[in-house]
Amino acid sequence: MSKDIDPVLQIDDGDTVRIHTVDCFENQITSPDMDFDTVDWSRQNPATGPIFVNGVAAGDVLKVTIGKIELEDRGLATVGPSGGVMKDYIEERFIKMFDVDTALNTTGFNGLEIRLNPMIGVIGNAPYDAPVPNSTPGAHGGNMDCKKITEGTVLYLPVFHDGALFGLGDVHARMGDGEVGISGLEIGAAVTVKLEKAASINTNHPVLIDEEGINMMVSHESLDEAVDESVRQMIKLLKPHTDLPLPEIAMLMSLVGEAQINQVVDPLKTARFFIPYYLLDHYSIDYGQELKS
Amino acid sequence: MSKDIDPVLQIDDGDTVRIHTVDCFENQITSPDMDFDTVDWSRQNPATGPIFVNGVAAGDVLKVTIGKIELEDRGLATVGPSGGVMKDYIEERFIKMFDVDTALNTTGFNGLEIRLNPMIGVIGNAPYDAPVPNSTPGAHGGNMDCKKITEGTVLYLPVFHDGALFGLGDVHARMGDGEVGISGLEIGAAVTVKLEKAASINTNHPVLIDEEGINMMVSHESLDEAVDESVRQMIKLLKPHTDLPLPEIAMLMSLVGEAQINQVVDPLKTARFFIPYYLLDHYSIDYGQELKS
Repeated sequence: MSKDIDPVLQIDDGDTVRIHTVDCFENQITSPDMDFDTVDWSRQNPATGPIFVNGVAAGDVLKVTIGKIELEDRGLATVGPSGGVMKDYIEERFIKMFDVDTALNTTGFNGLEIRLNPMIGVIGNAPYDAPVPNSTPGAHGGNMDCKKITEGTVLYLPVFHDGALFGLGDVHARMGDGEVGISGLEIGAAVTVKLEKAASINTNHPVLIDEEGINMMVSHESLDEAVDESVRQMIKLLKPHTDLPLPEIAMLMSLVGEAQINQVVDPLKTARFFIPYYLLDHYSIDYGQELKS
Repeated sequence: MSKDIDPVLQIDDGDTVRIHTVDCFENQITSPDMDFDTVDWSRQNPATGPIFVNGVAAGDVLKVTIGKIELEDRGLATVGPSGGVMKDYIEERFIKMFDVDTALNTTGFNGLEIRLNPMIGVIGNAPYDAPVPNSTPGAHGGNMDCKKITEGTVLYLPVFHDGALFGLGDVHARMGDGEVGISGLEIGAAVTVKLEKAASINTNHPVLIDEEGINMMVSHESLDEAVDESVRQMIKLLKPHTDLPLPEIAMLMSLVGEAQINQVVDPLKTARFFIPYYLLDHYSIDYGQELKS
């Protein structure tokens, strides 16, 4: 993602768009038996975009309401020696194709039925400075690989350049927290999103709201630091809404907050810190109210 | 915890015991207004034990079925400059007392009602070699601070010495994943557990089974390494039960496994890797079958 790529589409603040995406290998892999030497591995995690949103300026926050995620009917997963927790134990790249039943929301894994949890792996705005590869997450969003970025959720993304220059891709039909093998069930899709300028939230990192509560997402080389910073950023977000002194907020985070993991396999790792909705209600914080109506 | 502490109780394989515990400061703190200079902070995280279990030998695995956790009606939480994610931002130790309603399973935090999730912070066997402070987790168990160690779950602990030399303490009335502030809602309790030699599981790290599935717990200085090793240990546990080659197991873990966090504030951090029950069913793995009957 980059501020220097020309927009492929210009829309107005509040418009809804339906975005077609290809899988994380740009649909180059069609069979587990093909010659992988013909695959260009540099074409990883393509995002569709950038989209220029009129009326959204540098310094704003972009509110992305995730609508329908329409999956294609065939996807793939991969493991290998180049990445993932088990990379030192796997000698060569292994690829498996999956037929996906979008009506029943299931797929099969050697006779085991697995339910799908369709989600968006790469989603973000153009980063502040130098281009960031789509494989890498950061304050701009990018490859956060969060299974909570799914239908019905609202994602808030910092805007570094006029128009936001938004893009998304790398949809997964199924993934667990950690994405420990390096890939989810990678698949092409059509994703509908509503893009608008956020009215009430100010954040330096991506924030996600769903039916359960609010999640602060921070990416860092070290998971330890990503977790710690996600807590600090959540406290920063919460503090203006309460008279509690800092020690009491920290204590409250310890009792009701949850340190969670998006992924541990991308060039930077991503943690999310979650607090439940009743905390937002108690402090009259109105981010994402439309979720509750 | 240590192999050199004399047992306080000797029981038979399969016996059930009710264990009284004091809070993580040995009940020294009775009011937020007391003089904390009188508190001996070295008396942290006391565990009740060791209990010698007849018929359990070094090299076995101890199966601990967690029964009732009966909380006292008053507990406390603390934050401060000596530990926790926010330690660099909090100038002096702050302590808050909590009245706990065990009938309604709630407590209050400045007008906010919080539901309790009673859990055991410290639980383990005598470690293999040198004594390990109760504040520190490890392969023997110890201060794993896992909110899933609660009523109705089964914990499997490696046994390093004859009789297991089991102990537990540091009960929390409420805690979120991460325990980011350094303490949960610390409280005295009576905990009923059944202790027996495990028949069917072989593990080098604590394993927990609940209604949802199975969790592998690994502690390490770095959360990054704790997560990675928890995945490797889970695969080691699963591998004998399936004909899938390693790359396919790694892929399956990526799709249906979940990398989760126990705590990030103890001398070692603890990660857990979770796989859902249907995976155990599919591979005819019968750990903890009694949970399902």
